[in-house]
Amino acid sequence: MAPLPVSPLARALPDLPPVAGVRFGAAAAGIRYVGRTDLVMADFAPGTTVAGVFTRNKCPGAPVDWCRAALPDGSARALVVNAGNANVFTGRAGYEATQANAADAARLVGCAASEVFLASTGVIGEVLPFEKISTALPGLYATLSETGWEDAARGIMTTDTFPKAAVRETEIGGVPVRIQGIAKGSGMVAPDMATMLCFVATDAALPPSVLQPLLAAGTDRSFNRTTVDSDTSTSDMVLLFATGQAGNPPVTTPTDPALAPFAQALNALLLELALLVVRDGEGATKLIEIQVKGAVSDESARKVAMAVANSPLVKTAIAGEDANWGRVVMAVGKSGEPANRDTLSVAIGGVWIAREGTVVPGYDETPVVAHMKGPEIEITIDLGLGNGTGTAWSCDLTHGYIDINGSYRS
Amino acid sequence: MAPLPVSPLARALPDLPPVAGVRFGAAAAGIRYVGRTDLVMADFAPGTTVAGVFTRNKCPGAPVDWCRAALPDGSARALVVNAGNANVFTGRAGYEATQANAADAARLVGCAASEVFLASTGVIGEVLPFEKISTALPGLYATLSETGWEDAARGIMTTDTFPKAAVRETEIGGVPVRIQGIAKGSGMVAPDMATMLCFVATDAALPPSVLQPLLAAGTDRSFNRTTVDSDTSTSDMVLLFATGQAGNPPVTTPTDPALAPFAQALNALLLELALLVVRDGEGATKLIEIQVKGAVSDESARKVAMAVANSPLVKTAIAGEDANWGRVVMAVGKSGEPANRDTLSVAIGGVWIAREGTVVPGYDETPVVAHMKGPEIEITIDLGLGNGTGTAWSCDLTHGYIDINGSYRS
Repeated sequence: MAPLPVSPLARALPDLPPVAGVRFGAAAAGIRYVGRTDLVMADFAPGTTVAGVFTRNKCPGAPVDWCRAALPDGSARALVVNAGNANVFTGRAGYEATQANAADAARLVGCAASEVFLASTGVIGEVLPFEKISTALPGLYATLSETGWEDAARGIMTTDTFPKAAVRETEIGGVPVRIQGIAKGSGMVAPDMATMLCFVATDAALPPSVLQPLLAAGTDRSFNRTTVDSDTSTSDMVLLFATGQAGNPPVTTPTDPALAPFAQALNALLLELALLVVRDGEGATKLIEIQVKGAVSDESARKVAMAVANSPLVKTAIAGEDANWGRVVMAVGKSGEPANRDTLSVAIGGVWIAREGTVVPGYDETPVVAHMKGPEIEITIDLGLGNGTGTAWSCDLTHGYIDINGSYRS
Repeated sequence: MAPLPVSPLARALPDLPPVAGVRFGAAAAGIRYVGRTDLVMADFAPGTTVAGVFTRNKCPGAPVDWCRAALPDGSARALVVNAGNANVFTGRAGYEATQANAADAARLVGCAASEVFLASTGVIGEVLPFEKISTALPGLYATLSETGWEDAARGIMTTDTFPKAAVRETEIGGVPVRIQGIAKGSGMVAPDMATMLCFVATDAALPPSVLQPLLAAGTDRSFNRTTVDSDTSTSDMVLLFATGQAGNPPVTTPTDPALAPFAQALNALLLELALLVVRDGEGATKLIEIQVKGAVSDESARKVAMAVANSPLVKTAIAGEDANWGRVVMAVGKSGEPANRDTLSVAIGGVWIAREGTVVPGYDETPVVAHMKGPEIEITIDLGLGNGTGTAWSCDLTHGYIDINGSYRS
């Protein structure tokens, strides 16, 4: 398949300064692609802590199993990521490939294998050619650099049409800290190639017991609120590494008020990265934000928002620049959450089209039609039942999605 | 929009003989379309019983509310269906339109309004122009005929590309009875226009207490196992009318063994109608059957089958004639049902590609590639966990779906 055109919703890569204690690099290991990097490595300063969230798919890849097993120790010294092969549904051989990769990286870095984190993205069902990684790793390790972030953002891409990264400056107890992350993903599973991967590092000093709940809360309000096609990859993961180099005062509980600015910055960074993935949704031409209020609970609002975000009929209507609020009503109703037709209101682009169960008298479609022609679509739903609120993000469903996913493997 | 080409998966309409006690007809009431019928009426002999199942969408149309309220009486004398306007999200005015339609039909037939059943399919959010129906009904009523089934099958179409009907001959207690039905539907909600509707009549004599569980069981194994795009219309309904004209011996419980042939014939008829709807799925070029076995329960198998049936990535792969079993694994895993990667096996077209967590050694793709080029695709999944089985049906996701649903309303 020819390279895909860059998404019209793409954002330029920001400047990616060093994060103290983190060195990144990328190399071409020839795993599947020709003429590009496909292997990324990072090493982390001694004492680095780690948190992770993983796909809920019941058929996870071998690297997901590896990371889940390594996570409880809470200590990380290296990260190895390859693109082109997901090492999913590869049985015993897939497990052995993760063991080999981790052992190779541990030897180079001088750490325990359980301090090495692994991720793979690409074709499913083919055993990872781990020897190619073994061969490439020593040369790659020698090139690791504090300025290697951009190379890493590019090296983990599969069908992504642009590299994705975000950075935030914040503070803990008055001490400046930085949070920086890269992500990849364009469908939940791209054509044969797969997966949303996100790697974030900070120079803050935070124990795993603080890092994990912060990451779980942040992903719940970002990656878990976005959808491209409702499909869930076997390899999705978000890892957060904290090197401790910033020298901030110790924080021992996730509810410490000193953490508030950090948590806010982390949440914003994760949302920025999640939206970059949606902006690169396969075939996407419009970013869709669905705000739900008036639900019986926040969780109910989230489910309603996700039902709208996942509706093929809403997504195709938006692709056609059609302010088809009837399909929004349909999607609300099919969510299974408490909803009452006669208290339901729908706005598009800030214009209330339907209020309390019927069309607003004299509804003028003109401003809504103009809004639909833009690249960012806002849908607001008021269920009129309670105080629950929630937001989800999606992209439109276009011919481009069919082109990318319906082409025969060749 | 120009008329759509007939689905490549279409089936010819069968001969539709009379069902004693049922008269159908169709007329052009000018509700939305020009130059075609859009209003269908039936009347039923006195003593006709009725059963119904309705959309689970929480924002149902006014006619669904009407039918739900009328159903407990179990008695039916007339059916009025219009295409072109769904009478959904129309508030008080929509309710009043159903009252007017039912009163008009009741007056013509000489029955209670609660013995009139109503269905509407078409655009959402516009009040049904019930005066047009009032004007057209007397003339339509005068034309009702035992041979009007085909006209009815055509009159309820919206974006359907072919009319849909099925017939079965069976017996109760040795007395021959007939079951005959018509259906419409092509997406769960078509472009502005909506809905799966199915109307079945039999000359059997069966009380509502028997009819309702039979219909519920039959739809659960047919319409509830099919999907075009995972969206659920606000107007879906299946109604089953029993005129009692066949003169079969009385049956008082749904578990009476004398009912077995009838139940089997009804189930087969409902499945045939449901698959006709899938065959007319918007843009469909391939019918997909997903058989799941080895699940922890039948319900779990059904959920796994539906997760695969609803996966955009599976559906686009099949559109591209790609035997992409990795996406099947992904969809099984995302179903949330118990599944174990290492006991999971997948076959396409009867050829086992992956067994117990890894690719079958020496897997030869040739027969599978040939199968993928055909119009009917079979996927078999063995979860290897228990004895639960279940089947679902879907269609592929093609450019045609985007064309139909992404075109601007004009």
